[in-house]
Amino acid sequence: MNRREFLVVAALAGAAAWLPAGAAVLRERVRLGFIGVGLRGQDHLDLTLHRPDVDIVALCDIDDGMLASALKQVRDAGRPEPAVHTGDVHAYRRLLEAGSLDAVIIATPWEWHAPMILDALDRGIGYVGTEVVLGITLEDHWRVVRAAEHHRAQVMMLENVCYRRDVLAVLNMVRAGVFGDLVHLQGGYQHDLRGVKFNDGRTPYDSGAEFGAKGYSEARWRTQHSVDRNGDLYPTHGLGPLAMMAGINRGNRFTRLSSFASKPRGLHEYVVAKGGADHPNAAVRFSLGDVVTTQIACANGETVLLQHDTSLPRPYSLGFRVQGTKGLWMDVNQSIHVEGSSERHRWEPAQPWLDRYDHPLWRKYVGDAQGAGHGGMDFFVLHAFVESVKRGVPTPQDVYDAATWSAITPLSEASVRHGRTVEFPDFTRGRWRARPNDFALGDDY
Amino acid sequence: MNRREFLVVAALAGAAAWLPAGAAVLRERVRLGFIGVGLRGQDHLDLTLHRPDVDIVALCDIDDGMLASALKQVRDAGRPEPAVHTGDVHAYRRLLEAGSLDAVIIATPWEWHAPMILDALDRGIGYVGTEVVLGITLEDHWRVVRAAEHHRAQVMMLENVCYRRDVLAVLNMVRAGVFGDLVHLQGGYQHDLRGVKFNDGRTPYDSGAEFGAKGYSEARWRTQHSVDRNGDLYPTHGLGPLAMMAGINRGNRFTRLSSFASKPRGLHEYVVAKGGADHPNAAVRFSLGDVVTTQIACANGETVLLQHDTSLPRPYSLGFRVQGTKGLWMDVNQSIHVEGSSERHRWEPAQPWLDRYDHPLWRKYVGDAQGAGHGGMDFFVLHAFVESVKRGVPTPQDVYDAATWSAITPLSEASVRHGRTVEFPDFTRGRWRARPNDFALGDDY
Repeated sequence: MNRREFLVVAALAGAAAWLPAGAAVLRERVRLGFIGVGLRGQDHLDLTLHRPDVDIVALCDIDDGMLASALKQVRDAGRPEPAVHTGDVHAYRRLLEAGSLDAVIIATPWEWHAPMILDALDRGIGYVGTEVVLGITLEDHWRVVRAAEHHRAQVMMLENVCYRRDVLAVLNMVRAGVFGDLVHLQGGYQHDLRGVKFNDGRTPYDSGAEFGAKGYSEARWRTQHSVDRNGDLYPTHGLGPLAMMAGINRGNRFTRLSSFASKPRGLHEYVVAKGGADHPNAAVRFSLGDVVTTQIACANGETVLLQHDTSLPRPYSLGFRVQGTKGLWMDVNQSIHVEGSSERHRWEPAQPWLDRYDHPLWRKYVGDAQGAGHGGMDFFVLHAFVESVKRGVPTPQDVYDAATWSAITPLSEASVRHGRTVEFPDFTRGRWRARPNDFALGDDY
Repeated sequence: MNRREFLVVAALAGAAAWLPAGAAVLRERVRLGFIGVGLRGQDHLDLTLHRPDVDIVALCDIDDGMLASALKQVRDAGRPEPAVHTGDVHAYRRLLEAGSLDAVIIATPWEWHAPMILDALDRGIGYVGTEVVLGITLEDHWRVVRAAEHHRAQVMMLENVCYRRDVLAVLNMVRAGVFGDLVHLQGGYQHDLRGVKFNDGRTPYDSGAEFGAKGYSEARWRTQHSVDRNGDLYPTHGLGPLAMMAGINRGNRFTRLSSFASKPRGLHEYVVAKGGADHPNAAVRFSLGDVVTTQIACANGETVLLQHDTSLPRPYSLGFRVQGTKGLWMDVNQSIHVEGSSERHRWEPAQPWLDRYDHPLWRKYVGDAQGAGHGGMDFFVLHAFVESVKRGVPTPQDVYDAATWSAITPLSEASVRHGRTVEFPDFTRGRWRARPNDFALGDDY
C-alpha cells in the first residue's frame, strides 16, 4: 500500500477515522491533470494557476484552439509546460496512464463524465473532480458509485452553488435553527440559455442558430440533449444547496419524485427568430419541455420543488426558497421572514440576515474569491477539492451526493415519459441514516 | 314558463343566443336572499347595500349574534327589513321556499355549500352565488354540475381574485400576446392562517388556541378540515385567474394532477405556543401538510403549479407567475420580463405594464371599488353576479369553472394519499373545446 492508498483507505474507514479539519497537511502539493480545457475547463485552470500548491501536470482536449488557449494561460502564469494529450476522443486515457497524478478535473460534455470518471478510477486516480452532472443514465450513476467504493477513491462533482455566499449563509441559518424545523425547499435552474444552445459556430454566445457539428463550445454538444430528452436536464445547481440544508444522504434521503414538463416552444421560436423559418434547424423537433417542474419527497417529511427553465426569455434565477416552522427565505425577492423578529405577515430584506450569518469560509477567503468565476463560488469549490486531496480526506461533496443530485435527470425523464411518480434510489444503500452532515462546518474548505 | 324561466332558458340555449354585453337590462332590480351572514356574508351584504338595484329580501343564519349584526347593517342603510330565517341548520330551506327570490348568495362553512346549492336549484332559484369552494368531494362537484344543467340555472362561485387589478391587467396582457404563447403558470394560497384557525372563542383573530365548538367564526368549522384532510384545501384564489388566462373549459382543460404534501408541523407548534404543551389541542393530530404543492397538466401543453401554505409564519402571497414564449410576470418580486422590451436577462418593474394594460372594468368602476373588500375585488365579483341576474345571462364564471377549480381539493387529497398522479375529470364532457373564452372581455361586468 503506497502513501496515497493508505491515506484514502484511512479516510474512508469511517467518520471516526476522518482527519479532523485543520489536521496536518499530508501532501504539500497536488499533481493535477485536466481532462477538457474548453471554456469551463479554462475557468478551473485559471483558478488553479492562482494556487501555489497545485502543479498542472497534464492537459487533454481534442480541440486545438482550446488547447492553445489553455497552454497560453499556463505560460502566462510562468508555470512549467504540462504534458498535452490530444488527437482522438480517448486521448484522456493516455493522460490517465501517464501516471504520477494525484487528481484529475474533468470538464467535458456531460455524456463523457461517467466514462472518464470510471476510466480514471480504474487507472488508480484517487481523486476525481468532475463538472456537473455526474452521468446520463441511472446505471451511469450506479456504476460510478460502485467504482468509487471499489477503488476507495473520491469522486467530487464540482457543484459550485453550494458555495454561493447567500446559500452558505442560509445553510448557517438552517443549522442555527433560524427557520425552525425545515418543511419545504425550492430551487432550480432558470436561465435563458438560448444564446448558449445556439451560435454561429465561431462566437460562443448569442451569435446564431447553429448547434451540433456547426455549433461552437456548448452549442456543439449541449443542445442535442434538448432535442433528445425531456426532463430536468440540469438539476444540481438548484438541488445541491438544498440537499445539504436538508441533510440528504446525511440523516435524510429522497424517496419519491414526480416531474411535469410543459410543451416545447422556446427553442424552435428562437431558431426561427435567429435563422429564419427556412433554416434547417427550424425543422428540428425539440423534446425538452420549456419548463420542467419536479417534486421530491424526503424521508424526514420535507418536500423539495425544482424547476428547469432554459429555453425561454427570462432573467437568471435559481429560485431558492428555504422554509421551516419559524420562517422562510426567498432569493427572487431578496427577502426573509422570521417569526418573532419580522413584523407579522411582512417580508424584511434578507441582506442584514445574510451578513450576520456570513459563512466562516467567506469571511476567511473573501479576498481569494474576488474575481473568481460565478461571483466567487468557483474559488471555493476548487479550494475544497484541492484541500481534500492535500489532506487525503473525503471530499465535502462526495460520490453519493453527486449520484443523488444527478439522478434527478433520468428520474424526471422517466416520470415525464410515463406520467407517474417514481421511486428514488438510495445510492448509499442505507448508510444515509448514520452519515454525518459535515458539509462546510468550519472555515478550512 | 314564467319570465325568469324564459330568460334563463334563452340564455342557456347556447353561446349564439347569449345576450350581448350591453344588451337591454331585462330585470331592473334583483330580489336577493343571503344564506349565511357571518363575517364573510356581512362583507357581501355591505357591498349589496351600496347597490340601489338590489333588494335584500331575506337573510338566514343560525348564529344570533351574526344575524343581529347583519340586520343592523340593513337598518343603518335605511333599507326595508328583510325576512329572517334561523333556528336550525335547515332554516335556509325556509328562505328558499318563501319564494320570490331571483338569486341567493351562500356564505357558509365549506361543507354546506353543495347541499345548499342543490336545495336552491331544486326550489327553482335561477342564480346561485356561492363563496369558494363549490363542494368537498368529487361527487359533490358532479352533482352540482348535473343539477345546474338539469335546472338550466347559473351557479357562480364568487372567486374574487379573478378581479384583482393586477390579475385582470395580466389577463389583458395575455390576450394581447405580450407573453407570447402561454407555457407555464403558477399561483397558490400562501397565507398564514394560524390566527384564523385558532382563537379564544370570542375574538376572531390571533386570540387563542381554540377551534371547533370552542372556536369562533372560521375557527369553529374551518380548522377541522386541517385535522381531517391532507391536500390543497383552498385552491381557487390561485387557480381561478390562471384558469381564465389559460382558457380552461374554454378551448383548454386540465388533464392530470400530482400533489406532494410536506409534513404537518405548524399548527401543532402554534397551539403549543399559544396554549401551552398541556392544552387539549396540543394532542390533536393535524393531517394537513404545511406546504402542499400541486402540478397540473393542460390539454394544450401548459403546466400549472399551485401551492397551499396556511400553517406556517409567512407573508401573504398568491405566488403568481404567468410565463410564455415572450416573457413572464411574477407578483412576489413585482417584476416582469418581456422580450424585445426588457433589457435581456433583466427584470423590470411590473407596475408600468400593469398600468398600461389596466382592465376596462377597473378603469370604469375604480370609484365604486374603492373601500370594497380585498382591495376592491369583492366589488367586481358581486357586480358580475348581480349584472348577470339583471340581464338574465350566464354568469362570467360558471358552474364548470366552479367545479373544475374546486375539484383540485379532492384530487390533490387522492394524489397525496396514494402517492400518484390522478386523471382530471372533464366536467364539461367535451364542451370545453367549443366554449368561448369570454370572461371579462368588456367593461360591463
